[in-house]
Amino acid sequence: MKLVRYESNGKINFGVLAADDQINIIEGNIFCDDYVVSDKYVSLNDVKLLSPCQPSKAVCIGLNYHDHAKEMNLELPAEPLIFLKPSSALNHPGGAIEYPAISQNLHYEAELAIVIKKPARKVAAEDANQYILGYTCANDVTARDLQLHDGQWTRGKSFDTFLPLGPCINTDLDPHNTNIKLYLNGEVKQSSNTSNLIFKVPELLAFVSQVMTLYPGDVILTGTTSGVGPMQVGDTVIVEVEGIGRLHNTVVKG
Amino acid sequence: MKLVRYESNGKINFGVLAADDQINIIEGNIFCDDYVVSDKYVSLNDVKLLSPCQPSKAVCIGLNYHDHAKEMNLELPAEPLIFLKPSSALNHPGGAIEYPAISQNLHYEAELAIVIKKPARKVAAEDANQYILGYTCANDVTARDLQLHDGQWTRGKSFDTFLPLGPCINTDLDPHNTNIKLYLNGEVKQSSNTSNLIFKVPELLAFVSQVMTLYPGDVILTGTTSGVGPMQVGDTVIVEVEGIGRLHNTVVKG
Repeated sequence: MKLVRYESNGKINFGVLAADDQINIIEGNIFCDDYVVSDKYVSLNDVKLLSPCQPSKAVCIGLNYHDHAKEMNLELPAEPLIFLKPSSALNHPGGAIEYPAISQNLHYEAELAIVIKKPARKVAAEDANQYILGYTCANDVTARDLQLHDGQWTRGKSFDTFLPLGPCINTDLDPHNTNIKLYLNGEVKQSSNTSNLIFKVPELLAFVSQVMTLYPGDVILTGTTSGVGPMQVGDTVIVEVEGIGRLHNTVVKG
Repeated sequence: MKLVRYESNGKINFGVLAADDQINIIEGNIFCDDYVVSDKYVSLNDVKLLSPCQPSKAVCIGLNYHDHAKEMNLELPAEPLIFLKPSSALNHPGGAIEYPAISQNLHYEAELAIVIKKPARKVAAEDANQYILGYTCANDVTARDLQLHDGQWTRGKSFDTFLPLGPCINTDLDPHNTNIKLYLNGEVKQSSNTSNLIFKVPELLAFVSQVMTLYPGDVILTGTTSGVGPMQVGDTVIVEVEGIGRLHNTVVKG
């Protein structure tokens, strides 16, 4: 099932992607148990897609791809390294990424994001799947110069618009065997498969939830692969995860 | 005015601290414009005080006290260094701070926190006061070993219960001339005055809001002073800011 959140006539709804670019309208909230898939439809072309969830926080993972570690000649990490993006950074499919006036080196980072279904605190790896609603595409947009300048990554990762999510949540995806790509102005810049993840999804959820409670709609960004690089004002950037779709954004002057 | 949030008979309300340990009950939300101070009162002894706000994020400032920099023989920073604590870390006056099983070095950090009144994006320093509701006490609880081990400070700063706030928001405080102290089991461990802040409140709000939008109830923790140190299970820790009051917490096994 591919779940979307959208705006139509000023109202925000959830829905299920159906055949022929139709959305099967959901009554209720997919993060509550009492939602129902109605028998009504709306055309994808008549709505504005939104991020499929509204995280209270995004927990991001540092170096987590075998091929990226090899390319960079880096030792494999012994445990995940986490950092945060704030909820105020949320962005939407088709949304504009604002190039901050104080940065001269804005980067894309294609990532697979885990979407949390119910409150998760100190979850064991073997129970992780019960807490996961599904997966979506994320772009961990980064002002690389500020990230490196500060040492702490917060400022470089936390600007408004730096967390595009979407276009849907696939509830049936195998998160460890799917292709992930990033296109900049149509050209492939990142290309890997999630089979290269160093720390797998259950391990990540266990690690993060030992530290902090995750809430419905929160996301864990599982790390990026090789090929990160700069974007310029006017660029179009697409994160594509096989089985989820394409998360499309443009870069504008901030 | 000293604003509090409290629970009484299962209901959560805002109020104003009044004489003789009474709370003057507020009808409505202090972060909306339409609240009114009623003519009803409840005794402070009959309620459970909560954190006076519920931040969507806490933005924290690294080294920001002249006396701390001098003591540590550190150069003064050219600009603020920011990091985040997630909303899931929120804790309350009287709340238990959980000592994580995976840490062996849990520290207190007494701080003055700025409480945001209305959405603040790219605010000029000279307009900062319009966006500030007031000030409260914060304890930037830190698993120092994990902070130093990771390099990124997120994990060491983000455990559930690591963000005690309270007991009230003082809307009339001069944030640049007030004493700040930390007591561990009754003994003074940190003692300074906010006149020692390197980056002042308007500058901090301008700096942070250039990066990310701050929302009503969000907090900026303005940094800690010299004397940080360890806490043990069973300890009682109090952050005291003159004009605000005492934020009291105990340490329990996590």
